[in-house]
Amino acid sequence: MDLSALLHPLPEVTRRKRFKASRIFTVEEMDLKFSNGTLATYEKIVGGRGAVMAVPFDGQYFYLSVEYAGGLESYQLGLVKGKVDSGETPEQAVVRELSEEISFSARKVTPLKLGMTVAPGMLELTMYVYLCEDLYPCKQEGDEPEPIEIVKVTVQELKELLFSEDSPLKEARSIAALTLAMHKIGAL
Amino acid sequence: MDLSALLHPLPEVTRRKRFKASRIFTVEEMDLKFSNGTLATYEKIVGGRGAVMAVPFDGQYFYLSVEYAGGLESYQLGLVKGKVDSGETPEQAVVRELSEEISFSARKVTPLKLGMTVAPGMLELTMYVYLCEDLYPCKQEGDEPEPIEIVKVTVQELKELLFSEDSPLKEARSIAALTLAMHKIGAL
Repeated sequence: MDLSALLHPLPEVTRRKRFKASRIFTVEEMDLKFSNGTLATYEKIVGGRGAVMAVPFDGQYFYLSVEYAGGLESYQLGLVKGKVDSGETPEQAVVRELSEEISFSARKVTPLKLGMTVAPGMLELTMYVYLCEDLYPCKQEGDEPEPIEIVKVTVQELKELLFSEDSPLKEARSIAALTLAMHKIGAL
Repeated sequence: MDLSALLHPLPEVTRRKRFKASRIFTVEEMDLKFSNGTLATYEKIVGGRGAVMAVPFDGQYFYLSVEYAGGLESYQLGLVKGKVDSGETPEQAVVRELSEEISFSARKVTPLKLGMTVAPGMLELTMYVYLCEDLYPCKQEGDEPEPIEIVKVTVQELKELLFSEDSPLKEARSIAALTLAMHKIGAL
Protein backbone atom coordinates (compact mmCIF):
# COMPACT_ATOMS: atom_id res chain seq x y z
CA MET A 1 0.00 0.00 0.00
CA ASP A 2 1.65 3.20 -1.23
CA LEU A 3 0.29 6.29 0.51
CA SER A 4 2.89 8.73 -0.85
CA ALA A 5 0.17 10.54 -2.87
CA LEU A 6 -0.99 12.05 0.44
CA LEU A 7 2.31 14.00 0.44
CA HIS A 8 1.51 15.66 -2.92
CA PRO A 9 2.55 19.37 -2.84
CA LEU A 10 -0.42 21.51 -1.77
CA PRO A 11 -1.87 24.06 -4.18
CA GLU A 12 -0.81 27.61 -3.54
CA VAL A 13 -3.60 29.82 -2.17
CA THR A 14 -3.28 33.10 -4.09
CA ARG A 15 -6.37 34.83 -2.61
CA ARG A 16 -8.78 34.26 0.27
CA LYS A 17 -12.04 36.01 1.04
CA ARG A 18 -14.12 35.08 4.07
CA PHE A 19 -17.69 36.35 4.41
CA LYS A 20 -20.92 35.68 6.31
CA ALA A 21 -23.08 34.03 3.65
CA SER A 22 -26.23 33.64 5.80
CA ARG A 23 -27.35 33.77 9.42
CA ILE A 24 -25.42 30.60 10.27
CA PHE A 25 -23.00 29.86 7.41
CA THR A 26 -19.63 31.57 6.90
CA VAL A 27 -17.96 30.88 3.54
CA GLU A 28 -14.32 31.19 2.53
CA GLU A 29 -13.52 31.62 -1.14
CA MET A 30 -9.99 30.60 -2.20
CA ASP A 31 -8.14 31.04 -5.49
CA LEU A 32 -5.84 28.05 -5.90
CA LYS A 33 -2.88 27.32 -8.14
CA PHE A 34 -2.30 23.55 -8.27
CA SER A 35 1.24 22.18 -8.62
CA ASN A 36 0.57 21.42 -12.32
CA GLY A 37 -0.29 25.08 -12.93
CA THR A 38 -4.10 24.71 -13.05
CA LEU A 39 -5.99 27.65 -11.56
CA ALA A 40 -9.30 27.13 -9.74
CA THR A 41 -11.57 28.91 -7.27
CA TYR A 42 -12.87 26.79 -4.37
CA GLU A 43 -15.37 27.57 -1.62
CA LYS A 44 -15.74 26.03 1.79
CA ILE A 45 -17.99 26.47 4.81
CA VAL A 46 -15.85 27.39 7.78
CA GLY A 47 -16.02 27.89 11.51
CA GLY A 48 -16.45 26.07 14.78
CA ARG A 49 -14.18 24.07 17.04
CA GLY A 50 -15.27 20.73 15.59
CA ALA A 51 -18.07 18.44 16.65
CA VAL A 52 -18.49 15.26 18.66
CA MET A 53 -20.46 12.07 18.08
CA ALA A 54 -21.30 9.49 20.75
CA VAL A 55 -21.92 5.77 20.36
CA PRO A 56 -23.67 4.94 23.67
CA PHE A 57 -23.48 1.24 24.55
CA ASP A 58 -24.76 -0.22 27.84
CA GLY A 59 -23.19 -3.67 27.34
CA GLN A 60 -26.32 -5.04 25.68
CA TYR A 61 -27.93 -2.20 23.71
CA PHE A 62 -26.67 0.59 21.46
CA TYR A 63 -28.67 3.79 21.95
CA LEU A 64 -29.56 5.35 18.61
CA SER A 65 -31.41 8.68 18.46
CA VAL A 66 -34.22 9.97 16.30
CA GLU A 67 -34.01 13.67 15.56
CA TYR A 68 -35.49 16.10 13.07
CA ALA A 69 -33.04 16.72 10.20
CA GLY A 70 -33.65 20.12 8.61
CA GLY A 71 -31.57 19.32 5.53
CA LEU A 72 -33.94 16.50 4.55
CA GLU A 73 -37.09 17.76 6.32
CA SER A 74 -37.65 14.39 7.98
CA TYR A 75 -36.92 12.50 11.19
CA GLN A 76 -33.69 10.51 10.89
CA LEU A 77 -32.04 7.71 12.82
CA GLY A 78 -28.58 8.66 14.03
CA LEU A 79 -26.41 9.23 17.07
CA VAL A 80 -25.98 11.89 19.74
CA LYS A 81 -23.85 14.70 18.33
CA GLY A 82 -23.09 18.36 18.85
CA LYS A 83 -20.54 21.10 18.69
CA VAL A 84 -17.52 21.49 20.93
CA ASP A 85 -18.10 24.65 22.98
CA SER A 86 -15.46 27.23 23.82
CA GLY A 87 -13.17 26.08 26.65
CA GLU A 88 -14.27 22.46 26.35
CA THR A 89 -12.30 19.37 25.36
CA PRO A 90 -14.01 16.98 22.90
CA GLU A 91 -14.31 14.40 25.77
CA GLN A 92 -16.15 16.99 27.89
CA ALA A 93 -18.35 17.94 24.93
CA VAL A 94 -19.41 14.36 24.17
CA VAL A 95 -20.39 13.70 27.79
CA ARG A 96 -22.32 17.00 27.94
CA GLU A 97 -24.15 16.25 24.68
CA LEU A 98 -25.09 12.77 25.97
CA SER A 99 -26.70 14.25 29.06
CA GLU A 100 -28.44 17.05 27.14
CA GLU A 101 -29.76 14.89 24.32
CA ILE A 102 -30.61 11.53 25.89
CA SER A 103 -30.28 12.15 29.67
CA PHE A 104 -27.36 9.78 30.22
CA SER A 105 -23.74 10.25 31.09
CA ALA A 106 -20.84 7.81 30.64
CA ARG A 107 -18.04 6.82 33.00
CA LYS A 108 -16.00 5.31 30.17
CA VAL A 109 -15.27 7.24 26.95
CA THR A 110 -13.05 5.58 24.32
CA PRO A 111 -11.94 7.30 21.08
CA LEU A 112 -13.13 5.55 17.93
CA LYS A 113 -11.95 8.15 15.41
CA LEU A 114 -10.55 11.57 16.18
CA GLY A 115 -10.74 13.88 13.19
CA MET A 116 -13.42 12.07 11.18
CA THR A 117 -14.30 14.20 8.17
CA VAL A 118 -17.81 14.69 6.81
CA ALA A 119 -17.62 16.38 3.40
CA PRO A 120 -13.96 17.45 3.18
CA GLY A 121 -14.36 19.02 -0.27
CA MET A 122 -16.62 21.76 1.09
CA LEU A 123 -16.76 21.60 4.91
CA GLU A 124 -13.94 22.48 7.31
CA LEU A 125 -15.85 20.34 9.86
CA THR A 126 -14.18 17.40 11.60
CA MET A 127 -15.73 15.14 14.24
CA TYR A 128 -14.43 13.43 17.36
CA VAL A 129 -16.18 10.07 17.70
CA TYR A 130 -16.33 8.13 20.99
CA LEU A 131 -17.66 4.86 22.30
CA CYS A 132 -19.50 5.79 25.52
CA GLU A 133 -19.90 3.00 28.11
CA ASP A 134 -20.75 2.58 31.81
CA LEU A 135 -23.84 4.73 31.24
CA TYR A 136 -25.86 6.24 34.09
CA PRO A 137 -28.90 8.57 34.14
CA CYS A 138 -27.88 12.25 34.11
CA LYS A 139 -30.01 15.04 32.70
CA GLN A 140 -28.84 18.49 31.60
CA GLU A 141 -30.90 21.07 29.72
CA GLY A 142 -29.82 21.51 26.11
CA ASP A 143 -31.00 23.66 23.23
CA GLU A 144 -33.01 21.00 21.38
CA PRO A 145 -36.44 22.19 20.20
CA GLU A 146 -38.05 18.95 21.43
CA PRO A 147 -36.96 15.78 23.28
CA ILE A 148 -34.81 13.38 21.24
CA GLU A 149 -36.20 9.85 21.21
CA ILE A 150 -33.92 6.87 21.87
CA VAL A 151 -34.09 3.59 19.93
CA LYS A 152 -32.30 0.77 21.76
CA VAL A 153 -30.88 -1.93 19.48
CA THR A 154 -28.99 -5.13 20.19
CA VAL A 155 -25.77 -6.09 18.41
CA GLN A 156 -27.73 -8.39 16.09
CA GLU A 157 -30.36 -5.72 15.32
CA LEU A 158 -27.59 -3.21 14.62
CA LYS A 159 -25.99 -5.61 12.12
CA GLU A 160 -29.30 -5.73 10.25
CA LEU A 161 -29.64 -1.93 10.37
CA LEU A 162 -26.08 -1.48 9.10
CA PHE A 163 -26.08 -4.01 6.30
CA SER A 164 -29.63 -4.28 4.96
CA GLU A 165 -30.03 -2.18 1.87
CA ASP A 166 -33.38 -0.54 2.66
CA SER A 167 -32.46 0.15 6.28
CA PRO A 168 -33.57 3.46 7.88
CA LEU A 169 -29.98 3.93 9.08
CA LYS A 170 -28.67 6.12 6.26
CA GLU A 171 -26.30 8.64 7.76
CA ALA A 172 -22.70 8.00 6.66
CA ARG A 173 -21.06 9.21 9.89
CA SER A 174 -23.47 7.13 12.04
CA ILE A 175 -22.79 4.04 9.91
CA ALA A 176 -19.04 4.72 10.16
CA ALA A 177 -19.13 5.35 13.94
CA LEU A 178 -21.28 2.27 14.62
CA THR A 179 -19.12 -0.09 12.54
CA LEU A 180 -16.03 1.20 14.36
CA ALA A 181 -17.82 0.63 17.69
CA MET A 182 -18.92 -2.87 16.68
CA HIS A 183 -15.32 -3.68 15.77
CA LYS A 184 -14.07 -2.20 19.07
CA ILE A 185 -16.39 -4.42 21.14
CA GLY A 186 -15.42 -7.47 19.06
CA ALA A 187 -18.78 -7.86 17.29
CA LEU A 188 -17.44 -7.26 13.75
CA MET B 1 -36.41 -2.50 18.10
CA ASP B 2 -39.08 0.20 18.08
CA LEU B 3 -38.68 2.59 15.14
CA SER B 4 -42.03 4.38 15.60
CA ALA B 5 -40.20 7.62 16.53
CA LEU B 6 -39.38 7.98 12.82
CA LEU B 7 -43.12 8.56 12.29
CA HIS B 8 -43.13 11.59 14.62
CA PRO B 9 -45.33 14.40 13.14
CA LEU B 10 -43.16 16.78 11.09
CA PRO B 11 -42.78 20.40 12.17
CA GLU B 12 -44.92 22.85 10.23
CA VAL B 13 -42.91 25.10 7.89
CA THR B 14 -44.41 28.57 8.35
CA ARG B 15 -41.96 30.48 6.10
CA ARG B 16 -39.31 29.61 3.52
CA LYS B 17 -36.74 31.87 1.90
CA ARG B 18 -34.27 30.54 -0.65
CA PHE B 19 -31.28 32.65 -1.71
CA LYS B 20 -27.88 32.36 -3.40
CA ALA B 21 -25.50 32.72 -0.47
CA SER B 22 -22.26 32.55 -2.49
CA ARG B 23 -20.99 31.58 -5.93
CA ILE B 24 -21.72 27.89 -5.30
CA PHE B 25 -23.96 27.62 -2.23
CA THR B 26 -27.73 28.19 -2.19
CA VAL B 27 -29.31 28.41 1.26
CA GLU B 28 -32.91 27.89 2.31
CA GLU B 29 -34.07 29.47 5.55
CA MET B 30 -37.13 27.86 7.17
CA ASP B 31 -39.26 28.96 10.11
CA LEU B 32 -40.48 25.81 11.86
CA LYS B 33 -43.19 25.09 14.40
CA PHE B 34 -42.51 21.74 16.10
CA SER B 35 -45.42 19.56 17.21
CA ASN B 36 -44.79 20.59 20.85
CA GLY B 37 -45.23 24.26 19.87
CA THR B 38 -41.53 25.23 19.86
CA LEU B 39 -40.60 27.78 17.18
CA ALA B 40 -37.19 27.68 15.49
CA THR B 41 -35.45 28.97 12.37
CA TYR B 42 -33.32 26.42 10.48
CA GLU B 43 -31.04 26.81 7.47
CA LYS B 44 -29.95 24.23 4.95
CA ILE B 45 -27.75 24.13 1.86
CA VAL B 46 -29.87 23.02 -1.06
CA GLY B 47 -29.61 22.01 -4.69
CA GLY B 48 -28.38 19.28 -6.96
CA ARG B 49 -29.69 15.92 -8.07
CA GLY B 50 -27.67 13.99 -5.49
CA ALA B 51 -24.22 12.53 -5.75
CA VAL B 52 -22.63 9.13 -6.34
CA MET B 53 -19.78 7.28 -4.68
CA ALA B 54 -17.96 4.27 -6.14
CA VAL B 55 -16.18 1.45 -4.33
CA PRO B 56 -14.04 -0.01 -7.15
CA PHE B 57 -12.93 -3.59 -6.45
CA ASP B 58 -11.03 -5.75 -8.97
CA GLY B 59 -11.41 -9.01 -7.02
CA GLN B 60 -8.13 -8.51 -5.18
CA TYR B 61 -7.69 -4.75 -4.63
CA PHE B 62 -9.94 -1.89 -3.61
CA TYR B 63 -9.06 1.33 -5.48
CA LEU B 64 -8.97 4.29 -3.11
CA SER B 65 -8.32 7.80 -4.42
CA VAL B 66 -6.24 10.68 -3.17
CA GLU B 67 -7.71 14.08 -3.97
CA TYR B 68 -7.28 17.65 -2.75
CA ALA B 69 -10.00 18.52 -0.23
CA GLY B 70 -10.65 22.27 -0.18
CA GLY B 71 -12.57 22.13 3.11
CA LEU B 72 -9.49 20.88 4.96
CA GLU B 73 -6.80 22.28 2.61
CA SER B 74 -5.06 18.92 2.41
CA TYR B 75 -4.90 15.77 0.29
CA GLN B 76 -7.31 13.14 1.60
CA LEU B 77 -7.80 9.43 1.06
CA GLY B 78 -11.30 8.63 -0.17
CA LEU B 79 -13.32 7.18 -3.04
CA VAL B 80 -14.40 8.26 -6.51
CA LYS B 81 -17.41 10.53 -6.19
CA GLY B 82 -19.29 13.20 -8.07
CA LYS B 83 -22.61 14.79 -8.85
CA VAL B 84 -25.43 13.24 -10.84
CA ASP B 85 -25.78 15.31 -14.02
CA SER B 86 -29.05 16.33 -15.64
CA GLY B 87 -30.63 13.46 -17.60
CA GLU B 88 -28.43 10.84 -15.96
CA THR B 89 -29.34 7.94 -13.68
CA PRO B 90 -27.14 7.45 -10.59
CA GLU B 91 -25.81 4.20 -12.19
CA GLN B 92 -24.76 6.15 -15.29
CA ALA B 93 -23.20 8.86 -13.13
CA VAL B 94 -21.10 6.45 -11.08
CA VAL B 95 -19.70 4.76 -14.20
CA ARG B 96 -18.94 8.15 -15.79
CA GLU B 97 -17.20 9.41 -12.64
CA LEU B 98 -15.08 6.23 -12.49
CA SER B 99 -13.83 6.79 -16.02
CA GLU B 100 -13.25 10.52 -15.51
CA GLU B 101 -11.49 10.23 -12.16
CA ILE B 102 -9.48 7.01 -12.31
CA SER B 103 -9.73 5.92 -15.99
CA PHE B 104 -11.67 2.72 -15.34
CA SER B 105 -15.19 1.58 -16.06
CA ALA B 106 -17.16 -1.26 -14.46
CA ARG B 107 -19.30 -3.98 -16.04
CA LYS B 108 -20.94 -4.82 -12.69
CA VAL B 109 -22.47 -2.10 -10.48
CA THR B 110 -24.20 -3.20 -7.26
CA PRO B 111 -26.03 -0.79 -4.91
CA LEU B 112 -24.56 -0.64 -1.39
CA LYS B 113 -26.71 2.20 -0.05
CA LEU B 114 -29.09 4.38 -2.04
CA GLY B 115 -29.87 7.62 -0.24
CA MET B 116 -26.90 7.74 2.13
CA THR B 117 -26.98 11.06 3.95
CA VAL B 118 -23.93 13.17 4.77
CA ALA B 119 -24.90 15.92 7.22
CA PRO B 120 -28.71 15.73 7.25
CA GLY B 121 -29.10 18.58 9.74
CA MET B 122 -27.76 21.12 7.25
CA LEU B 123 -27.31 19.50 3.81
CA GLU B 124 -30.08 18.38 1.47
CA LEU B 125 -27.40 16.15 -0.14
CA THR B 126 -27.88 12.39 -0.45
CA MET B 127 -25.51 9.91 -2.06
CA TYR B 128 -25.95 6.76 -4.13
CA VAL B 129 -23.17 4.32 -3.21
CA TYR B 130 -22.18 1.39 -5.45
CA LEU B 131 -19.76 -1.50 -5.44
CA CYS B 132 -18.10 -1.39 -8.88
CA GLU B 133 -16.64 -4.67 -10.17
CA ASP B 134 -15.45 -6.24 -13.43
CA LEU B 135 -13.27 -3.17 -13.99
CA TYR B 136 -11.66 -2.35 -17.35
CA PRO B 137 -9.57 0.62 -18.53
CA CYS B 138 -11.71 3.44 -19.91
CA LYS B 139 -10.70 7.09 -19.90
CA GLN B 140 -13.02 10.10 -20.18
CA GLU B 141 -12.05 13.74 -19.65
CA GLY B 142 -13.49 15.19 -16.44
CA ASP B 143 -13.27 18.57 -14.74
CA GLU B 144 -10.63 17.71 -12.14
CA PRO B 145 -7.86 20.32 -11.78
CA GLU B 146 -5.20 17.58 -11.73
CA PRO B 147 -5.06 13.77 -12.07
CA ILE B 148 -6.46 11.83 -9.09
CA GLU B 149 -3.99 9.27 -7.75
CA ILE B 150 -5.12 5.70 -7.00
CA VAL B 151 -4.04 3.73 -3.93
CA LYS B 152 -4.69 -0.01 -4.35
CA VAL B 153 -5.29 -1.87 -1.08
CA THR B 154 -5.97 -5.51 -0.30
CA VAL B 155 -8.83 -6.67 1.92
CA GLN B 156 -6.39 -7.08 4.83
CA GLU B 157 -4.84 -3.62 4.27
CA LEU B 158 -8.31 -2.10 4.10
CA LYS B 159 -9.22 -3.68 7.45
CA GLU B 160 -6.20 -1.95 8.97
CA LEU B 161 -7.10 1.38 7.33
CA LEU B 162 -10.68 1.10 8.56
CA PHE B 163 -10.06 0.06 12.14
CA SER B 164 -6.72 1.53 13.21
CA GLU B 165 -7.25 4.70 15.18
CA ASP B 166 -4.57 6.88 13.56
CA SER B 167 -5.40 5.72 10.03
CA PRO B 168 -5.33 8.26 7.18
CA LEU B 169 -8.79 7.01 6.14
CA LYS B 170 -10.92 9.60 7.93
CA GLU B 171 -13.89 10.38 5.72
CA ALA B 172 -17.14 9.10 7.23
CA ARG B 173 -18.84 8.30 3.92
CA SER B 174 -15.75 6.45 2.61
CA ILE B 175 -15.53 4.43 5.85
CA ALA B 176 -19.26 3.69 5.61
CA ALA B 177 -19.12 2.75 1.91
CA LEU B 178 -16.04 0.54 2.36
CA THR B 179 -17.45 -1.35 5.36
CA LEU B 180 -20.66 -1.99 3.39
CA ALA B 181 -18.55 -3.23 0.45
CA MET B 182 -16.44 -5.46 2.72
CA HIS B 183 -19.65 -6.96 4.10
CA LYS B 184 -21.07 -7.41 0.58
CA ILE B 185 -18.01 -9.40 -0.58
CA GLY B 186 -18.08 -11.48 2.62
CA ALA B 187 -14.91 -10.02 4.15
CA LEU B 188 -16.59 -8.52 7.23
